Amino acid sequence: MNDIEEISNALLNFRNERDWKQFHNPKDLAIAISIEAGELLEAFLWKPAEDAKKDKIEEELADIFSFAFLLAHEKGLNVKQIILNKIERNREKYPVEKAKGTAKKYNEL
Amino acid sequence: MNDIEEISNALLNFRNERDWKQFHNPKDLAIAISIEAGELLEAFLWKPAEDAKKDKIEEELADIFSFAFLLAHEKGLNVKQIILNKIERNREKYPVEKAKGTAKKYNEL
Amino acid sequence: MNDIEEISNALLNFRNERDWKQFHNPKDLAIAISIEAGELLEAFLWKPAEDAKKDKIEEELADIFSFAFLLAHEKGLNVKQIILNKIERNREKYPVEKAKGTAKKYNEL
Amino acid sequence: MNDIEEISNALLNFRNERDWKQFHNPKDLAIAISIEAGELLEAFLWKPAEDAKKDKIEEELADIFSFAFLLAHEKGLNVKQIILNKIERNREKYPVEKAKGTAKKYNEL
Repeated sequence: MNDIEEISNALLNFRNERDWKQFHNPKDLAIAISIEAGELLEAFLWKPAEDAKKDKIEEELADIFSFAFLLAHEKGLNVKQIILNKIERNREKYPVEKAKGTAKKYNEL
Repeated sequence: MNDIEEISNALLNFRNERDWKQFHNPKDLAIAISIEAGELLEAFLWKPAEDAKKDKIEEELADIFSFAFLLAHEKGLNVKQIILNKIERNREKYPVEKAKGTAKKYNEL
Repeated sequence: MNDIEEISNALLNFRNERDWKQFHNPKDLAIAISIEAGELLEAFLWKPAEDAKKDKIEEELADIFSFAFLLAHEKGLNVKQIILNKIERNREKYPVEKAKGTAKKYNEL
Repeated sequence: MNDIEEISNALLNFRNERDWKQFHNPKDLAIAISIEAGELLEAFLWKPAEDAKKDKIEEELADIFSFAFLLAHEKGLNVKQIILNKIERNREKYPVEKAKGTAKKYNEL
């Protein structure tokens, strides 16, 4: 069993023991990701990046990943595949010769 | 090589070819996750969950995962481990006998 | 007519002409605020605050305010009053002698 | 003094008494708005809109407005004017005859 299957199984077990599938419709899972993304930002508010507490980042990042894996599961998406696909599309939007060393968006390159 | 290493390597290769590490400080990566989480929400705005377009969900979820993996990499966090640790902590906050079938937060159980 | 009434009326007229009240339930309005907050963050991504474009900030801030005023209207909340009330509560959470010059959260003061 | 001036003055007084202007650069104020938008979403998570608690909505909406007014102040933006301007632009993007009764985005009309 690979890593991602192992993570998904652990998350699904935890959820099923608590009978929480009923709450996990895709819209609420997307809302949950946004909430956790906001809590991650809290680690960095009013301070430079290096002053953020690592354990807070770790905790909120774990929550973001958890809801993202659950949403991928609900929608039948293969996480590795969708990321590799997106990288391929980004290769076209951000060709190395244009995008190297600049943070501009593809439509401004 | 397991899934998560493979994904991280693909993301880092894409980034390093473009010399983008200089922009990827943890604070901006956390901001990027929030932006993408907002774009994911757009798929669901003003409509029931089942009307959201799957390819939009797939695309935005891929972006959220990508920045989350990059932030985990920057902070030296093992993604599988931090999720499994969080599940353990959640077992204590949400014991099955109290949390089963309810969406209440742990401090309201 | 004061400023806030004038703004709310303009927003409600615009909405009613388009028959959009049906979409503006509080949950979706809250989602819309988060989406626009993410778009505002885009103005600042990968760059220092002073490099963000003012017209982008203006546009996204206008959207955040618009959905926030619409949500306040739906819930029958008086915007001036809830802000002044919150300032009063914050006076207790952040007494000047403890909070002066520090960005700590009230539970860390 | 109109409503918006009164609100802004109250927020600025509160801030200046605590010497917090130093933390309120536009990038962090935008981050603060996103964090509060996430907290507002918490009121609606895993439940229908009508089950959200009004006092939670009130509290988080007050925070969103507060940071939005502070950001507008930092950037020298007139809140009433930017909203009325945005409504004008939206009249062109969403003409009544095309947009009436549909939640489609302008680029799909």
